[in-house]
Amino acid sequence: MHELEIKVPASRPGSYKVAVGSGFLANLWPQIKSAFGHRRPFVIADANVVAAGHLDTLLGGRPVPHFVIDPPGEVSKNITTAVAIVEAMEKAYLGRDTVVVALGGGTVGDVAGFAAAIFKRGVPIVQIPTTTLAQADSAIGGKTGVDSSVSKNAFGAFWHPAAVYVDVATVRTLDERQYRSGLTESVKHALIADAEYFEFLEQKMDVILDRQGEVLQTLAQHNCAIKGRVVEADPDERNQRRMLNYGHTIGHAVESASNYRLLHGEAVAIGIVAAGRIEIEMGLSEPGRLERVTTLLSRLGVPVTLPPDLDAEKLIDLIRHDKKAIDRWPRFVLLGQLGRVHCPDGQYALEVDRRIVEKVTQSMVDDR
Amino acid sequence: MHELEIKVPASRPGSYKVAVGSGFLANLWPQIKSAFGHRRPFVIADANVVAAGHLDTLLGGRPVPHFVIDPPGEVSKNITTAVAIVEAMEKAYLGRDTVVVALGGGTVGDVAGFAAAIFKRGVPIVQIPTTTLAQADSAIGGKTGVDSSVSKNAFGAFWHPAAVYVDVATVRTLDERQYRSGLTESVKHALIADAEYFEFLEQKMDVILDRQGEVLQTLAQHNCAIKGRVVEADPDERNQRRMLNYGHTIGHAVESASNYRLLHGEAVAIGIVAAGRIEIEMGLSEPGRLERVTTLLSRLGVPVTLPPDLDAEKLIDLIRHDKKAIDRWPRFVLLGQLGRVHCPDGQYALEVDRRIVEKVTQSMVDDR
Repeated sequence: MHELEIKVPASRPGSYKVAVGSGFLANLWPQIKSAFGHRRPFVIADANVVAAGHLDTLLGGRPVPHFVIDPPGEVSKNITTAVAIVEAMEKAYLGRDTVVVALGGGTVGDVAGFAAAIFKRGVPIVQIPTTTLAQADSAIGGKTGVDSSVSKNAFGAFWHPAAVYVDVATVRTLDERQYRSGLTESVKHALIADAEYFEFLEQKMDVILDRQGEVLQTLAQHNCAIKGRVVEADPDERNQRRMLNYGHTIGHAVESASNYRLLHGEAVAIGIVAAGRIEIEMGLSEPGRLERVTTLLSRLGVPVTLPPDLDAEKLIDLIRHDKKAIDRWPRFVLLGQLGRVHCPDGQYALEVDRRIVEKVTQSMVDDR
Repeated sequence: MHELEIKVPASRPGSYKVAVGSGFLANLWPQIKSAFGHRRPFVIADANVVAAGHLDTLLGGRPVPHFVIDPPGEVSKNITTAVAIVEAMEKAYLGRDTVVVALGGGTVGDVAGFAAAIFKRGVPIVQIPTTTLAQADSAIGGKTGVDSSVSKNAFGAFWHPAAVYVDVATVRTLDERQYRSGLTESVKHALIADAEYFEFLEQKMDVILDRQGEVLQTLAQHNCAIKGRVVEADPDERNQRRMLNYGHTIGHAVESASNYRLLHGEAVAIGIVAAGRIEIEMGLSEPGRLERVTTLLSRLGVPVTLPPDLDAEKLIDLIRHDKKAIDRWPRFVLLGQLGRVHCPDGQYALEVDRRIVEKVTQSMVDDR
């Protein structure tokens, strides 16, 4: 047998800009045109964003081809929507010189990012997140994914944005529950990376809930800086990036066991409390830490206990079969102290004795 | 406005092995298991490959989950098939520790490669090409693509294989027309990169058409070496890799104008002749070169003139609106001499005066 080795050269290193401000959406289009002027834009939004007036504010009457995801939300985060978007781009006679602009929350960013990744072998994507969840988390880092008819995030790609524009004024139109739920990811960022930021959240929670522009900008800057540092260090999620899954192992199971009646951030809040209990069981928690976390989450107005009607058996079964686990017990990200992840031997996602996980899950079920 | 820059580090450079031999398919599975033993395999083939017995030869009765594309061929190279494959992987409880094994021709390799690229944000793909086309061309280089209901290759990704195994004995089961058509890409490789290889093809064409193992191995080694060098130098097709599109500008238009009744290699053969005529018009051709090329293609048994029933108006319209063109006249790869591409100012794909293109297209139509 004759053998030949074909080299795959390293990609060129790149970078992208994250701009944070308040109330600049109406003046953003010329900036995008000047940054991507040689490309033809295609805007993806959803019915919520249209109803809130953000699409009109961005386009200002310019005749730009676009796609509106309807119904909005998780229910449309699937391969069927991604395929419909690609076909809409083709019908608009767009080619490889397209730049996709995603205006909206997590679903819009995920579906649009995936569509951009697979259209004609990939075109650039500009993210303009308009929710607390997307501004804190999903718009940055290049993870895209959509569901199949069988399971969540069956399809996906790593596809880094070409630019991210965070206009914090856009979150003012969010309904209260969505607004608060998305802030859970800010609490998560503080917990895994920045104790001072946690104190800031404690001090400013009332102003944050009042949606005041200045504090929202500070919030967005902290979130983007923390997430940016983590994804720079480990863009493909081989290890360090996993710390962003803090609260998500049990959080995802809770979200699923609730049949998605709980919002993502609400389920993650419960997952953060569960992680805190595991930390106590493992002797990783300083006294009073979990109380402090629970107090902040309660002020935020997200649940810190399981809903009474949650299917406990389904929850336990889901934790046993966590999709990231693959033939083994699911892994957990745990804090060593407030603002720092516990990472023995440099591992950010740890195996936890299944008796501890079962004890904590049972205690969460009992405390409903 | 506050700005932050997020770095996207360069990917690690990699490499993959291309193994060329004859008759090793029955002994290949243990090799794949030892190379990817920590991963769970999922095999993708098509009905032709199953009928030819290759799937049984590869698996040797081992119970490996697999998907058979049916009907085989271009008609199944679409997003619907790719989605069905991903859902079959999910139903087989496969996760991120999957290795996809593609056994078949260009359609199998393209669809399987795309499915591997988007399943759970990407899993490795092993290519085992079984046609003259796939062994010469599509199995190497990481271009994947599938059609939408609107157009060809609307969806795609660059996704390099983790390994390529070329067993030249597998092409013995191809029908004569498929076998010959796929060899056009070998002629193309010789034309763009290796005049001695062209002479080899001239000398050995009878033995090649007789499908003798030794000459087929020499052929595969040349093809893999030429294609490997080109894709190493320009994996993302920014410039140099475009030389692999020699004969494809008009070839694609001919393929489409024939409503895909012409096979890819047959259409490319006509495209190579058309490119040769353009080279003569532009003073790029030494005397007798096009005759030599036409003679070799004729011995190969692929068409060198347009079919009499081809829709000439559709052809001319398609050339005008070449999908790679995007708001401009399509670009052509042209030879400066046999075995070398003409690349003034380092450009491998050139604009050609539209009067020359129209004159040559008309001459091809008149000569039917």
